[in-house]
Amino acid sequence: MMEEKLIFITNDDGIQALGIRTLAHLMSRLGKVVVVAPDSARSGAGCSISSTTPIELCKWEGFGDLDTDPLLPAKGEHDIEYFTCTGTPVDCVKIAHEQVLHATPDLVVSGINHGDNASVSVHYSGTVGAVIEATLKGWSSIAFSFQGFKKRPDFSPFFDSIVKIAEHILQHRLPPYECLNVNFPEVEKLQGTRVARMAKGLWTGEWSSAHNPHGKNMFWLTGAFNNLEPEQTDTDCWALEHGYASITPIQLDMTAYDSLEMLRKYLNS
Amino acid sequence: MMEEKLIFITNDDGIQALGIRTLAHLMSRLGKVVVVAPDSARSGAGCSISSTTPIELCKWEGFGDLDTDPLLPAKGEHDIEYFTCTGTPVDCVKIAHEQVLHATPDLVVSGINHGDNASVSVHYSGTVGAVIEATLKGWSSIAFSFQGFKKRPDFSPFFDSIVKIAEHILQHRLPPYECLNVNFPEVEKLQGTRVARMAKGLWTGEWSSAHNPHGKNMFWLTGAFNNLEPEQTDTDCWALEHGYASITPIQLDMTAYDSLEMLRKYLNS
Repeated sequence: MMEEKLIFITNDDGIQALGIRTLAHLMSRLGKVVVVAPDSARSGAGCSISSTTPIELCKWEGFGDLDTDPLLPAKGEHDIEYFTCTGTPVDCVKIAHEQVLHATPDLVVSGINHGDNASVSVHYSGTVGAVIEATLKGWSSIAFSFQGFKKRPDFSPFFDSIVKIAEHILQHRLPPYECLNVNFPEVEKLQGTRVARMAKGLWTGEWSSAHNPHGKNMFWLTGAFNNLEPEQTDTDCWALEHGYASITPIQLDMTAYDSLEMLRKYLNS
Repeated sequence: MMEEKLIFITNDDGIQALGIRTLAHLMSRLGKVVVVAPDSARSGAGCSISSTTPIELCKWEGFGDLDTDPLLPAKGEHDIEYFTCTGTPVDCVKIAHEQVLHATPDLVVSGINHGDNASVSVHYSGTVGAVIEATLKGWSSIAFSFQGFKKRPDFSPFFDSIVKIAEHILQHRLPPYECLNVNFPEVEKLQGTRVARMAKGLWTGEWSSAHNPHGKNMFWLTGAFNNLEPEQTDTDCWALEHGYASITPIQLDMTAYDSLEMLRKYLNS
C-alpha cells in the first residue's frame, strides 16, 4: 500500500474564503490535508511576520464534512483538519511547522487567492509569501491565484488544472529554493496552461484620498496595474490576458549574479 | 552649478530610530533629503501593504536642526524634511511618490536597520521591502542594516562606507530591477566591504510559547538563524562573520529561468 501523502494548505484571504476550501477539497483526493490559515483576510501581507505581537493558534471546527457549499468540488477520500491563527500567512507556515504538522509535508499549496498575483504582485502577495516560507523550509510549494475579485467565484474551470499541477509536483518535486506561482484568468473556459516568466509591471495612481468622519485626511491604497511589456508572449500577464493559466517558477535566491563582478571592482575594499 | 540631488529615505524601525536619523544626516551631505518613515516600528513587514485600512501622512517637526544627539554624524549642507505615515515601509515609498516628492529621487536609502538583513532575511525585511518598492518605481535604491540590536548603537565605524556606497550609486546608478542590500557587522572597526551573494539559511526554533494574563496560550516568534553554507567565502553571512560589510545586489525578477524549459515540457497545455 502506498503511504498516505501529507499536504499542507494556507492562504491570505483567511479560513472562510472559498478559495482555500476549494483547495482543501481538491487536495483531499491526493492525500491527508492539514490547513492552517489566518482567521481573517491578510491581503497584501507579502512575507511579513508577527515580530512584535504574540499569535494564537486554534483548531477550527467550522467546516469538515459539513462543508457542502454547492460551489465546492467534491471532497476526496482523505481527511482534512483545519486550524486558524491570528498571524500572517508566513506565520501560518511557521507555526504549522513546529506546532501542528510534526512531519514534513509532501506538498504545500496556498490560495486560491481572490485576485491574481502575476508580475510584481509576487512581492506584495501573502499567498506567495506563504509559499516562499514553505520553500525556505525545503517543502515543494505552489501558490494558486485567480484574476477575479468576486467573493463567490466559480473555480470549477480550474479544478482539473489544479489537481494536475499538484500531482506533477507531488511526483517530481521542485528544485531547492524554487516554488511555483500559478494564476488563473477570469474565464469560463480555460484555453490551457502556459509556463511563463514574471512580466515587468508597475502600479500607478496608487492613492485615493478621503476624509474620515472626524475630518482627517486619509489615504486608501488603490491603483491600476500596467503591464510594461504587453507585446511579449512569454509572460504571466500575456497568458492571463489570453485566457491561459500562467505557471511561473519562482527562485528565492534574489542575488543579481550578473552584477557581482562589476560591483566588486568598485565596492570591495 | 550642479543641480541639487534629491535623496529619499525610509526605514522599518520608525521615524525615531537612530538608524534613520543617521542616514538623514549623512545623506544631507550629498543632496536634499526627504524622509517618509513609519510612525513606529514595523519590523518584519517585508513588502506588505495596507490593503484594507486607510493610512495617514503627517509632517514631522520633531527633529530638523534640533537633532543634536551625540551619536549622530554632523549634518550636511542640504535640507532635510521629515514625514511620518501610519502604513508599512512599502506604503511609505508609495505615498512619498504620489503625495510628497513630486519629482524622481536620484537615490533612495532605507535603514539603517537595527538587526541585519542578510541571507533569507531579505524576504522578511521591511527595510529591504521599501527598497524593492522604490526599485520597482525605477529608482536606484540601497538598504542598509546593522547586525546589532542595541537601541543606541555606535554607527560611526560605518559612516564612511555608507557615504562611499551612496556616492557610487548616485554617480553610476543600478541596472533596472536591481537594488543593493548592505549589511554591517557588529564591530568597532570594519575590516572592509565585500560584494557577496545571499547565503542559504534557515531559521529554526521559531516559537516561544507563553500564557497571557487570561491563561490563553500564545506564541511569540523567535528562533535562531543557521547559515547553511558556513564554509563558503562568497556569501553575505561569511562577510559579516569576518568583520566585513556585505554588499549584495538583489534582483526583483524572481523568475527561475533555468526551470522554464523543463516545466514547459510537462505543464504547458
